[in-house]
Amino acid sequence: MSVLVVGSVALDTVETPSGQVTEALGGSATYFSLAASLYTAPIHLVAVVGDDFPSQGLAMLRDRQVDLRGLEISPGKTFRWIGRYGEDLNTAETLATDLNVFAHFDPKVPTEYRHESVVFLANIDPELQLRVLEAVDRPRLSAMDTMNFWIASKRDAVTDVMRSVDLVLLNEAELRQYAGVSNLMAAAQRVLDLGPRAVIVKKGEYGCAVFARDRYFAMPAFPLQRVCDPTGAGDSFAGAFMGSLAGSSFSWDAMRRAVLQGCVVASFTCEAFGVQRVLGLRTQDVERRLQQLLSYTQIQSAREEGLDHAVQNAAKA
Amino acid sequence: MSVLVVGSVALDTVETPSGQVTEALGGSATYFSLAASLYTAPIHLVAVVGDDFPSQGLAMLRDRQVDLRGLEISPGKTFRWIGRYGEDLNTAETLATDLNVFAHFDPKVPTEYRHESVVFLANIDPELQLRVLEAVDRPRLSAMDTMNFWIASKRDAVTDVMRSVDLVLLNEAELRQYAGVSNLMAAAQRVLDLGPRAVIVKKGEYGCAVFARDRYFAMPAFPLQRVCDPTGAGDSFAGAFMGSLAGSSFSWDAMRRAVLQGCVVASFTCEAFGVQRVLGLRTQDVERRLQQLLSYTQIQSAREEGLDHAVQNAAKA
Repeated sequence: MSVLVVGSVALDTVETPSGQVTEALGGSATYFSLAASLYTAPIHLVAVVGDDFPSQGLAMLRDRQVDLRGLEISPGKTFRWIGRYGEDLNTAETLATDLNVFAHFDPKVPTEYRHESVVFLANIDPELQLRVLEAVDRPRLSAMDTMNFWIASKRDAVTDVMRSVDLVLLNEAELRQYAGVSNLMAAAQRVLDLGPRAVIVKKGEYGCAVFARDRYFAMPAFPLQRVCDPTGAGDSFAGAFMGSLAGSSFSWDAMRRAVLQGCVVASFTCEAFGVQRVLGLRTQDVERRLQQLLSYTQIQSAREEGLDHAVQNAAKA
Repeated sequence: MSVLVVGSVALDTVETPSGQVTEALGGSATYFSLAASLYTAPIHLVAVVGDDFPSQGLAMLRDRQVDLRGLEISPGKTFRWIGRYGEDLNTAETLATDLNVFAHFDPKVPTEYRHESVVFLANIDPELQLRVLEAVDRPRLSAMDTMNFWIASKRDAVTDVMRSVDLVLLNEAELRQYAGVSNLMAAAQRVLDLGPRAVIVKKGEYGCAVFARDRYFAMPAFPLQRVCDPTGAGDSFAGAFMGSLAGSSFSWDAMRRAVLQGCVVASFTCEAFGVQRVLGLRTQDVERRLQQLLSYTQIQSAREEGLDHAVQNAAKA
């Protein structure tokens, strides 16, 4: 099943204790697309770049079956972000945000994308997110992300988007900020009360938690010996999560497996600068780490033991 | 299998957004003992209180099969702690620490405890922890906890204790402080290099992670709608963890299950002030929440699906 994503495509300059990169391919929709493309195809990208955008950036995306018919190339400069991470790699310090052509982004959903089944609204102005939702003909699954800036400046529009989607993906701090309570369960409940089927809370090095009406699921992050650059980890999580769902079903069980995929791909993202590691990923790399994460978090259940026993008994009979 | 614990027994005055308690039964060894007693008996407590210690405190402990022959009643006042938690219940603000008789605590291990198989050194002066270890005749399993104060003031002695025990239990911040690195895996490796078999990292609302030489295990915390008072959660975790190990085996599998028990009992501790909730716990309460935590964190594995299939096939045959 194809996936439509609307978000940013940017050129990132990032410094971390491991080194730095200059004007590397970045942006929420980029990370999302590359991660989602590991699970399903094609990915329909709706975004804008300037006419200075390097052609090898486009080639990288096309190579991974990202359909660029919705990528507008606008006269002017591409969105640029400059950031720095200190020893504590959990939070970035933004040194510069040059929106450039992204400042006037008016997402145009190509007519042929109107019947898209799976739609992801990455972090952009919530009013634009609403416009995109209106341009799509009742998707089977829709999800959104946002950020502290929109929660503070366009809270009502953020609420409207939350009311309109199936899944809300946020990081922990954003969820607490939006709900105005520090208890995560209580905060998630406030969002669930607006109507979405589930709230997926990204917790960085602590993994992920999913709150649904009567259900809960949590997965620790894949532990990393060295984090090179966490930029895009949350968007990669979202891409793998949505790609995995689009490639299977939208059941609760599928959602739990999708969380696992999200944690795995996000961990790879952190291991190199920018999209480098995710670009080089093969399905078997993901599968190997997924099995590792399972062995790190799963307990042989009483049920499994019971089944072992039943198999033995059946063999004896 | 019995468990020996050395630590503090105190009277805590605590204020949280949910209310407050005055001079309630507290202290690391108290929480540890009550939690451990859910899994194994007896618990041999080595600690000191003043002659003002309320007799119902002693009765509460005795009722839960905590053996008090090692509890010294010294002339003077019992250790008192006064603390406050704000909206963010993760860290306590200490308003007063009156060590009183605990300032001169000289743990005396009764002769009949010398051949104890399982020993837990709760957070006390590391020099005292070493003395206790010397007084016990090669336990089958020994573990320690400590705190920021000792890591800063008696680092060498803390290191000596780490070298001498099988398991090191610390919270995240303490592990980072001791190792001097922010990456948790790297930090745990520095402790593992000293010799212990595993480092158990307590992460509060984020659960727990276990680092062993070639193994890793992580468990998210049990999610709580309302945290009343987190005091003693870490010590309850340790008590349930060690009690569970003492009641089964010391294998890796037993360790993973013990982490689960620790998370469950710690979550109960947070639901009421002081030891209130843990005191009222029955085995079936723990078992019910344990099954819930499993359903929150476990994925039906490929192996389980295979077994399901095998059982169905066997039934058909």
